[in-house]
Amino acid sequence: MSTLGKDLRRVLRTDQVLDLAEDVSAYANDATYYIAKKNPDAVALPESTADVSAILKLASLNVIPVVPRGAGSGLAGGCTPVHGGIVIDMKRMNNIIEIDNRNMSATVEGGVVLGNFVKKVERMGLFYPPDPQSSQVCTIGGNIATRAGGPRGVKYGTTERYVTGVEAVMADGTVITPGGKVVKQSSGYDLTHLFTGSEGTLCVITRGMLRLLPLPPSKRTIVVACTNIDQAAGIVSEIIARGAVPAMLEFLANIAIMTMNNYIKPPIPVNGEAFLLMELDGSEAQLDVESVEIEDVCRSLGALEIRIIKNPEESETYWYARSRLYPLLTSVLKRVITEDITVPRNKLPELVRRIQGIAVSSGVLIGLAGHAGDGNLHPTILMGDIGEEMSRKAEHAIEEIIKAGIDLDGTISGEHGIGIHKSRFLELEHGSEQVAIMKSVKKALDPLNIMNPGKIWMEEGGNC
Amino acid sequence: MSTLGKDLRRVLRTDQVLDLAEDVSAYANDATYYIAKKNPDAVALPESTADVSAILKLASLNVIPVVPRGAGSGLAGGCTPVHGGIVIDMKRMNNIIEIDNRNMSATVEGGVVLGNFVKKVERMGLFYPPDPQSSQVCTIGGNIATRAGGPRGVKYGTTERYVTGVEAVMADGTVITPGGKVVKQSSGYDLTHLFTGSEGTLCVITRGMLRLLPLPPSKRTIVVACTNIDQAAGIVSEIIARGAVPAMLEFLANIAIMTMNNYIKPPIPVNGEAFLLMELDGSEAQLDVESVEIEDVCRSLGALEIRIIKNPEESETYWYARSRLYPLLTSVLKRVITEDITVPRNKLPELVRRIQGIAVSSGVLIGLAGHAGDGNLHPTILMGDIGEEMSRKAEHAIEEIIKAGIDLDGTISGEHGIGIHKSRFLELEHGSEQVAIMKSVKKALDPLNIMNPGKIWMEEGGNC
Repeated sequence: MSTLGKDLRRVLRTDQVLDLAEDVSAYANDATYYIAKKNPDAVALPESTADVSAILKLASLNVIPVVPRGAGSGLAGGCTPVHGGIVIDMKRMNNIIEIDNRNMSATVEGGVVLGNFVKKVERMGLFYPPDPQSSQVCTIGGNIATRAGGPRGVKYGTTERYVTGVEAVMADGTVITPGGKVVKQSSGYDLTHLFTGSEGTLCVITRGMLRLLPLPPSKRTIVVACTNIDQAAGIVSEIIARGAVPAMLEFLANIAIMTMNNYIKPPIPVNGEAFLLMELDGSEAQLDVESVEIEDVCRSLGALEIRIIKNPEESETYWYARSRLYPLLTSVLKRVITEDITVPRNKLPELVRRIQGIAVSSGVLIGLAGHAGDGNLHPTILMGDIGEEMSRKAEHAIEEIIKAGIDLDGTISGEHGIGIHKSRFLELEHGSEQVAIMKSVKKALDPLNIMNPGKIWMEEGGNC
Repeated sequence: MSTLGKDLRRVLRTDQVLDLAEDVSAYANDATYYIAKKNPDAVALPESTADVSAILKLASLNVIPVVPRGAGSGLAGGCTPVHGGIVIDMKRMNNIIEIDNRNMSATVEGGVVLGNFVKKVERMGLFYPPDPQSSQVCTIGGNIATRAGGPRGVKYGTTERYVTGVEAVMADGTVITPGGKVVKQSSGYDLTHLFTGSEGTLCVITRGMLRLLPLPPSKRTIVVACTNIDQAAGIVSEIIARGAVPAMLEFLANIAIMTMNNYIKPPIPVNGEAFLLMELDGSEAQLDVESVEIEDVCRSLGALEIRIIKNPEESETYWYARSRLYPLLTSVLKRVITEDITVPRNKLPELVRRIQGIAVSSGVLIGLAGHAGDGNLHPTILMGDIGEEMSRKAEHAIEEIIKAGIDLDGTISGEHGIGIHKSRFLELEHGSEQVAIMKSVKKALDPLNIMNPGKIWMEEGGNC
């Protein structure tokens, strides 16, 4: 039994602490095991905010790194304990405290699994839009910590637009509750949104207060096959400009459509270069108006084929086929690295073209799919082997993709976070002066640098 | 000529500096002259970000307080130079840099008047929802600094939901540009939203990057006369739960309706106790669906009268009558103090009842109107005389109103900011630990405490 484990067992029950190598090794990385992997010295499993506070008091007293962890489904190495220390596994803090249908607001513990919460609110006729693809496992605390998004971002925005308040445990164990149930607030600094997206480096999010919407009564799926990327981008801009904003507006390259055609009858014609998969939601009357608008835009801009699918079961097959893409890729390839570049919407065609060029020049296969409506592309490095040369090429391609995104007024992460995967590019995006300001905020709130150290920006002397 | 004026004229042109008493006295207060009034030592009128940076370099070198100012239409004393120093009047930085209709995004200088901007984007078929009542004079920089709202908050949220990035000049003159044109970002700390609502205490907002929406094609006005406040609140909750969220959803007491009836034919019957004034926006098809829903809710909950007004000119008379309320009050009364309590929506009836009780017990006339859809009430102290006793009573009533709001899980400011008017209540809402964290952020970013000192929270030894 380690000293740290012993210390933790003084403030928690025995079954709330793990410190055997075979137990803690499960906490060595997130979904990007190839970026970094390091065992924590101990894992704490709090069951209450008081537990989290006790852990942080102990950690700050002894200057021990603390890494908050949701489901570990992150794609940036954000919850990898690069300096060892304590991983706080939030899974036992999974209570939905309240769903208040009169105020359309919910309060949940940080460890609540998003999919479980969504199921529950939808049964009550309510709607929580953020929909990261990992919704069946990821936690709402993790979503808040990374400003998580998903396909619905185009119409509904990402997690931060639904967080009205949090309960946060600070580095010294202090518990504060910025924000609240109110939907508008101009009372002091917006700590709620400073913490949203802070990736565990400022506090542990123990509770979130969330804004809910009424559940849209109907949905409709539209598939558009486009001659080329510029045509697809033109269609996207025009339908949004006309106010017919789809709930989801996905861009897919034809390799993705070929894969999806395993599930879809009749198959989508693959003579196009770019495809749009959309879901509209709202009242039937509104969907009729929007379908007509979208069809009109697609025809006038020369789309190859337009399918409007009203039948819910048939719609489902398209989205099921879409959801199989990433698992299929990971099952047949040795390694899949997903980037998260977001640019102003009209620069998407140029970004796609540049990435196609990067694929050719670096000799790396890059899959292209993403959320076209909000300019968020997930270029995906597809690696059939992971030898030294291939890894070097992939590294180079990633760097070029990131630079292309920044050059096009974009951000290096739309919805995944920086973690350690992109920390070396942070200054490239924001400039050293802005990063210095972020660091000064960090220092003010976590003077001992115990909160998820080594993340978001490079450490002095380089990250681990 | 003052020394400070001389120093400023070294970094700016002569006509960009005011330091004569007759000139600077116009900058002694905002729209709440009765809260505090103090001349600045000098006023600087920057014309570029470089000018603002030069002013701040000078100020930080000499540890001189700096107070950024938009139109001075604030209702919390936020831009009152309580410690003297330099007021930075942003009015000359009034360029709309870009309205990008493909990305539905705009970049504006901080001194742009909201109403001018709105007119311009609407001519392009675009829509910028935030609509503080002072829109014809207030500046977008001021809106960002105070997280300004308005009636449309219920459907569209307030300013912070439309700010995707800012250009900010820090206390030492450093210029940074957090955020950008991208509509989603998970890349480092969200400084954009830390600065939004920071009331000039962290930086000067020299530019805002704003998200735009497509302009809704149609509007419809609905007026509902309700028997009492509980019925009105029930109607509000139910129509929002059904997804028929109006763009504006105003609550009015019958004294307001009596005043408005000077403009409206046939007059609204005043036998009710509470009234709802709504505007729906969207496609005609959607408005038809929503009107039916709302009418159904109102009838089933027993509303006294429902008027659905499709004719735009007729609609206009209702909103014109509504807009005359505040000016009318200020013209006939000696003093009007508007509070800005926001509570979870279902607690609005209880808040109204408590405030009615406070009016009786303190012997103060309190007008009640507000944005019912988002729980934001603007209880308005109506003072026919401003003698010492009346002022004491008003002070007492304000304190009781604030306490009632906090007791009902509310915030002391939904959309006006804290300034100096509510700084003594900040800890009451957030607790001393949270306020200490806000202060530590302030100290990290403005170590010399030159940025709008004396605002948001109480200073050591009490505010000026």
